[in-house]
Amino acid sequence: MKRVLLTLSYDGTNFYGWQKQNGLRTVQGEIEKAIEIIAGKPCEVFGSGRTDAGVHALAQTAHFDLPVDIPISRLSEVLNNLLPGDIAITCAEEVDLNFHARFSIKKKRYQYRVYNGNVKDAFMCNRMGWVKYTLDEEKMLECAKLLEGRHDFHGYCSSATCTSDFIREIFAIDILKEDDFYYFEVEGSGFLYNMVRIIVGTIVDVGRGKLSIESAREALEKGDRSKAGVTMPASGLYLKSTTY
Amino acid sequence: MKRVLLTLSYDGTNFYGWQKQNGLRTVQGEIEKAIEIIAGKPCEVFGSGRTDAGVHALAQTAHFDLPVDIPISRLSEVLNNLLPGDIAITCAEEVDLNFHARFSIKKKRYQYRVYNGNVKDAFMCNRMGWVKYTLDEEKMLECAKLLEGRHDFHGYCSSATCTSDFIREIFAIDILKEDDFYYFEVEGSGFLYNMVRIIVGTIVDVGRGKLSIESAREALEKGDRSKAGVTMPASGLYLKSTTY
Repeated sequence: MKRVLLTLSYDGTNFYGWQKQNGLRTVQGEIEKAIEIIAGKPCEVFGSGRTDAGVHALAQTAHFDLPVDIPISRLSEVLNNLLPGDIAITCAEEVDLNFHARFSIKKKRYQYRVYNGNVKDAFMCNRMGWVKYTLDEEKMLECAKLLEGRHDFHGYCSSATCTSDFIREIFAIDILKEDDFYYFEVEGSGFLYNMVRIIVGTIVDVGRGKLSIESAREALEKGDRSKAGVTMPASGLYLKSTTY
Repeated sequence: MKRVLLTLSYDGTNFYGWQKQNGLRTVQGEIEKAIEIIAGKPCEVFGSGRTDAGVHALAQTAHFDLPVDIPISRLSEVLNNLLPGDIAITCAEEVDLNFHARFSIKKKRYQYRVYNGNVKDAFMCNRMGWVKYTLDEEKMLECAKLLEGRHDFHGYCSSATCTSDFIREIFAIDILKEDDFYYFEVEGSGFLYNMVRIIVGTIVDVGRGKLSIESAREALEKGDRSKAGVTMPASGLYLKSTTY
């Protein structure tokens, strides 16, 4: 038996997220189906974390235990031929048997893509969030700085979050602009439910002048979700990298 | 009553094509729903032609009769706010009452996008056809030249085509290459069912050396579909323009 670490990308548009669900098309479900064909029996795949419906991955990671003797060097190709077109394995490598895709993780980076043009673009809808308003970059950077560091992010997660530990560390929030697009990158130790989408929504709301930086600070200090900004749509979110 | 011509683009990924169908999400269905909200009653929308499930449009055209007095100059904005994100009205203009989006058409141009890279890319799957093989451009141009002009295209349409008139005129087939992408553009008087996808599939099959130019010629001269190439997937096809 070998433990295999997969790196993979997916266009999340037509998946009900990462996690396997009966009768629904999910990324984990499709990968487990492909592996079962190779392995001849069901093998559970452990992702670095779940992604929601519509969320994409540039480099998600996941591990599983391969019970048959297949050269790992050929595994990407074999799996890619079995998988649908909207999932691509970019790397397959053998790892230690005590490695775990979720628990061994040190940090994770998400990218959030915003289309900032005036004109509605039908091809952006499944790939980007759309913000029509002019954004003040200085204000956005100020808001990003406020959120960096180790904080209780109770005010920056969905009320559906199931945890009692809201402390997370954000190592960096970078904002890049290119033509009509903004790329927000958030790197952290881990994230609460909807946390990246609410962080970006808050930065954007501050940038367009809808929300004050004081309100964003209050959301952080008092853990008050109502003082933070909107939850950006899932379609603009990309899991960019995981670090072990 | 005013007759209105709409120009619109759509990402066809999550539509069951253009044509209204009970219980399914279609482009015509979504547009008629939005217009009904403005008009206060159902209005039929006539497209320049149907597009299949998964096929996109950069500039589809469609007309309808607007029974209420709304300034046409504001119609695009109003409709775009009512429509989902994957349909965008790019122009709305008043036309003559004898204008018909389908019957007044002079020519139509389709673009077919091919990703020609070696590496599987999850984000191409819903937007492009994927051809891994090296393509011989000279052979492809030769095949394109063969198909230009006025012909009986019986061998270049799906067996599901419902017509007795298979004569069509292809004004031009252009092939553009840019990095790892090929853009095939086909302009004609009109097209049979799956005709563009079979024309591109034949050119590609000739380009990769799977099919001879003689076989492509036989398909044309004898109306023998089995001598032509594959039907390319819907996801790479874009209706690019219509000319009246």
